[in-house]
Formats: sequence, structure tokens, C-alpha cells
Amino acid sequence: MTPLFSSTGTKSHISVDRFNAILKETTPLAAYLGIRAERIEVGEAWSRITFSEAALRAGGTFSGPALMALIDVCMYAAVLGASGDDPRALTSNVAITFLRRAPARDLIARCRLLNCDSDFVVGSIIVYPEGDEADVVCTSTCTYALPPRSSEDLRA
Amino acid sequence: MTPLFSSTGTKSHISVDRFNAILKETTPLAAYLGIRAERIEVGEAWSRITFSEAALRAGGTFSGPALMALIDVCMYAAVLGASGDDPRALTSNVAITFLRRAPARDLIARCRLLNCDSDFVVGSIIVYPEGDEADVVCTSTCTYALPPRSSEDLRA
Amino acid sequence: MTPLFSSTGTKSHISVDRFNAILKETTPLAAYLGIRAERIEVGEAWSRITFSEAALRAGGTFSGPALMALIDVCMYAAVLGASGDDPRALTSNVAITFLRRAPARDLIARCRLLNCDSDFVVGSIIVYPEGDEADVVCTSTCTYALPPRSSEDLRA
Amino acid sequence: MTPLFSSTGTKSHISVDRFNAILKETTPLAAYLGIRAERIEVGEAWSRITFSEAALRAGGTFSGPALMALIDVCMYAAVLGASGDDPRALTSNVAITFLRRAPARDLIARCRLLNCDSDFVVGSIIVYPEGDEADVVCTSTCTYALPPRSSEDLRA
Repeated sequence: MTPLFSSTGTKSHISVDRFNAILKETTPLAAYLGIRAERIEVGEAWSRITFSEAALRAGGTFSGPALMALIDVCMYAAVLGASGDDPRALTSNVAITFLRRAPARDLIARCRLLNCDSDFVVGSIIVYPEGDEADVVCTSTCTYALPPRSSEDLRA
Repeated sequence: MTPLFSSTGTKSHISVDRFNAILKETTPLAAYLGIRAERIEVGEAWSRITFSEAALRAGGTFSGPALMALIDVCMYAAVLGASGDDPRALTSNVAITFLRRAPARDLIARCRLLNCDSDFVVGSIIVYPEGDEADVVCTSTCTYALPPRSSEDLRA
Repeated sequence: MTPLFSSTGTKSHISVDRFNAILKETTPLAAYLGIRAERIEVGEAWSRITFSEAALRAGGTFSGPALMALIDVCMYAAVLGASGDDPRALTSNVAITFLRRAPARDLIARCRLLNCDSDFVVGSIIVYPEGDEADVVCTSTCTYALPPRSSEDLRA
Repeated sequence: MTPLFSSTGTKSHISVDRFNAILKETTPLAAYLGIRAERIEVGEAWSRITFSEAALRAGGTFSGPALMALIDVCMYAAVLGASGDDPRALTSNVAITFLRRAPARDLIARCRLLNCDSDFVVGSIIVYPEGDEADVVCTSTCTYALPPRSSEDLRA
């Protein structure tokens, strides 16, 4: 996939530290699972999940929901990187295909935004073991809705 | 959706208590989020998520990953209800569409299996506030693969 | 799935004949494949695909794209049934899970809308052989975006 | 997305001409819509849809089902390119997200396979106007099941 946003020399609308602070404050689940953003560029973001008991399921592999949380945080980081700290962003659609069991080490999610218009944002995310981007564990497409500013109060 | 399995007078392959014991033992995330199965029949299952801080995100609503975990547990309960305690079951595909913000109370997920052949199981899941099944918060279709028994050792 | 719209005594915003006339005029593919709406209520619609050579693939079964077209027409009929003849409606997301080979006869798609707010509409669709609703061939969730009226000209 | 199959110097299991001959013979819908494979490598494939009346919908833009058919043919070409002319391949899951209206010219689909084990194949597909790969019209993830050879007769 070709990212639609050139990242060279373009500053993200949110820093990794600021994003992780928001995440820590608002989403205790991320801390519980050991998930944080690693890098945020305009149109692209990376997040990490630590290999730890909390994120596993039967058989000692990452659970489906832990991978879904990793994907959701990565998409959210990319959305805030493109649009700034906009509390209106709402997940509207998530599709995940699991390809293989994750190995017993940290995983990285990489999100590339495919568009970013005023109504919604679509991102393509892959999850892979740290250091091995070709060994894709799962792939996902997420859509975030950005409600019109006028309807913000109705939703929030 | 018409469930494919008549539940009247047919005993599920796993009891709710047995399922919740397995869940507690193997998936700490479910306990952290306050998720448990409520009822398991052949071809159908219900799970619940407690309204609690751990499951929320910014704005005090259920987070996307918490809803995804609720859906995954419900599907897993339905799969084990139909096939028995089969450790080979693996999530292969999840698609979730979010319709509206969840209200500030417990949510119920209801899964109906649409098929159950030897290779894979497809379930249709809706999530709604307790007591109000028509007010769907999100809808999902999940596919679990049931690998051939001969390849079990390769995967486990 | 519980439909969110009571259909008893509520008149659809578009008649089946009017819908099929629009379809014939604007979408030659539907006529080629033998697809038409059968019934439209508020929040619910049914469409049919005729078993014919044009819709088949290798092995003499319905092709994936023919089933996708059937689903799309059914969703479109339900959307126009709920909102009237609104040319702004645009497909934004389609997810289809195929459960089994379709038998060699006409198929019916049934769409139930799960919500219908001002921004987007979500429908749940099943496809089954005529006369056998429990023998689901494929299941789908579709989202149609309804762009704000003010941006209509930009899109059309 | 990084393709998992190096294409340099590796011969596809099927030629473009052979694939298009099979397509023509078995799937009349593809010819009707002006869809054909353009290039097939191991783990990757490209298909094209001609801008023509048959593929359009209201407003003179490509219809959803025409884009779905383009995606399905592209995935099928990639699957046969990786596995050879295997009639067992069956679509099991398709998810498509539409990003923007397609312009009034030919479109190209590009599929990259993300895995190819003995049970199923997952592909990631983008559709874009010819000559402008960054202007993604829609993105899709498809899963094809490859049933075990022993169950072939039951399905065919």
C-alpha cells in the first residue's frame, strides 16, 4: 500500500509522548495490556504490545482481543497524527483477518492512512513480530468517523 | 437471522460454569474487563460486560477493544457450546460495525452460529444494552477455523 | 437480529416497481445478472437473483461477484425504502462471509437495517435459497454513507 | 504491505493468457464487465476493468458490484498464480472499504498475498485509477479457502 501522506519533513499533529499520555489517562486497558504508540507521522503510526501474561490466551499466544486493542490504538494514533487531538473521532468499522499464531515476543502494528477527508478516515494496519515485518500475524482495515462539528455535542 | 441450531431440548457441549472457569484460567483480560458468559445453548450464546472503569475510554463510554473482547468471548462460548471443549478453535476473521455509543450500563452480546462444518464456524453477533435488544450498539460476524485434527500438533 | 423498524402498517418510501425501474435504468449489471427487488418495507427488503448462466462461475455455482451484486441491490432497496429516493447514498463498507455453495436455484437476499441516522445506514443481509431461509449461503454487513446535504454537490 | 513472496525470477504457476482463457470460459460476468488479468506473479497480481456503460451505476461512476468483481478476479489471479490451476479455491470472506468515487477511466486492482498455507490464502487488494496508484478508490481483504483434497468431491 502506498501511503497517501508524505511523511518526510511533515510534522505530525501530535507527539508520541502526548498521545501516550492521553492513552494512559483515558484508556486503562492499554496500560493493562502493555500497549503504547512508538512513532507517529502524518498518515502513518506504529504501536507496540509487550509480550506479557495479561495479553495471552490459552496456549500462551496473544489473544484476539489483545491484538484488536493493539490495532485500535495504532489506528487512533494515526488518526490523531493526521487530524490533531480531535475527540470527535469514533471507530465505525473494524475488519481483522488473522493469518498465523503470533510468536512469543513483542508485536508491532503499523497503520497507514488511505484517506483523510472531512467525514471519515480509513487506515490499513498490519501486525508483525518486532523486527520481522514480512511475517504478518494479522491484517486489518479500520474506519473512523469524524462527525460534523455541528453534531459534536449530540454525540459527546 | 434464523439460528441454524434448534436449542430446545438440546444440551450444549459445555456448561456456562465450565466455560467461565476456562475463560478465567486462560484469558486474564476477560476478568480484567468484567466479561463472562451468561448462557450457552447449541448454536447460540450470550455474554455480558460489566460497566466499569476498566472497560471505558475517553468520554466514559465503552472502548472499542472492550466491545471486541465481549464479542470474541461470546463467539468462543457459542463455538465451544456447539463443538465441545476443543482447543483447536482459532479466530480467523472478525468484522465489527459500530452503530451508536453504548449507554452507561452493562452490555449483552448474543451470538448465533450460522453454520458449523468440520473446517470453520461462522457466527453473527449483536451487542445491546441489557434489557433492550433492539438498541443494537454494534454488530459483528466472526469466523473461527477448526484445523483438521491431523494438523493440531503443528499449530498448538 | 431484531429489525429496528416496525414494518406493520408503515409504508415504505419507495415501491418495488419504482425501485426496479430505477435499477433497470441506472445499473445494467443487475438486469444482466437477473437481479431485482421483491419486496420493500420500512427497514427491510428482499431481492432475488435468477439461476442463470450469466451469474455462474466454474463448477456451475453462483459466482462471488453475482452474490455481492445481489447483496448490494438488497441493501440499496432497504436504504431507499427507509430514506426515499435519495441519490446521495453511497456504499462505504461491505463485508461478506460465504458459508456454503449455493444450490442450483434462485436465491433470495434479505436485508434488515440496524440503524438509520443522518450520517450512515447499517444493514445486515443474509442470502438463502428460495424457500429455505435457514440454509444461509452467505451473510453480510453493509454500511451506506449519507453525506450531509450541503456536500451533495461536491460528490455528485 | 510487504509482499510475502519474492517475485523476482520466480515463475507464476499460471500465465496471464491461460488465466484469462479460464476466466472467459467460466465466468461470463467478467467479460460483460470488461475485467481481465493484466499481470500475474508469485504472490501478486493485477487486474483491470474497462470504463464502460456495463460497469456503471447512477451518476456515471463504477458500481459497487463492478468493483467487487474486479477485486475478486484479481484475488483469484493471485491465488492461481501462487497455487496453480486449483479448482478447489473458494472465496470464504471479502471485506471492502470504499474511499472515494472512481474517476471516469479504467481502474487497476493490485493484490498482494499475505500468506499461502495449505488451508487458506489471504490477499490485500487496492483499486486505483490507471497510472495513479496513490489515489486509492477502495481497499479490500479477501480470504480464499483451499479445502483439503480429501473433501474435494463433497464440495464440487
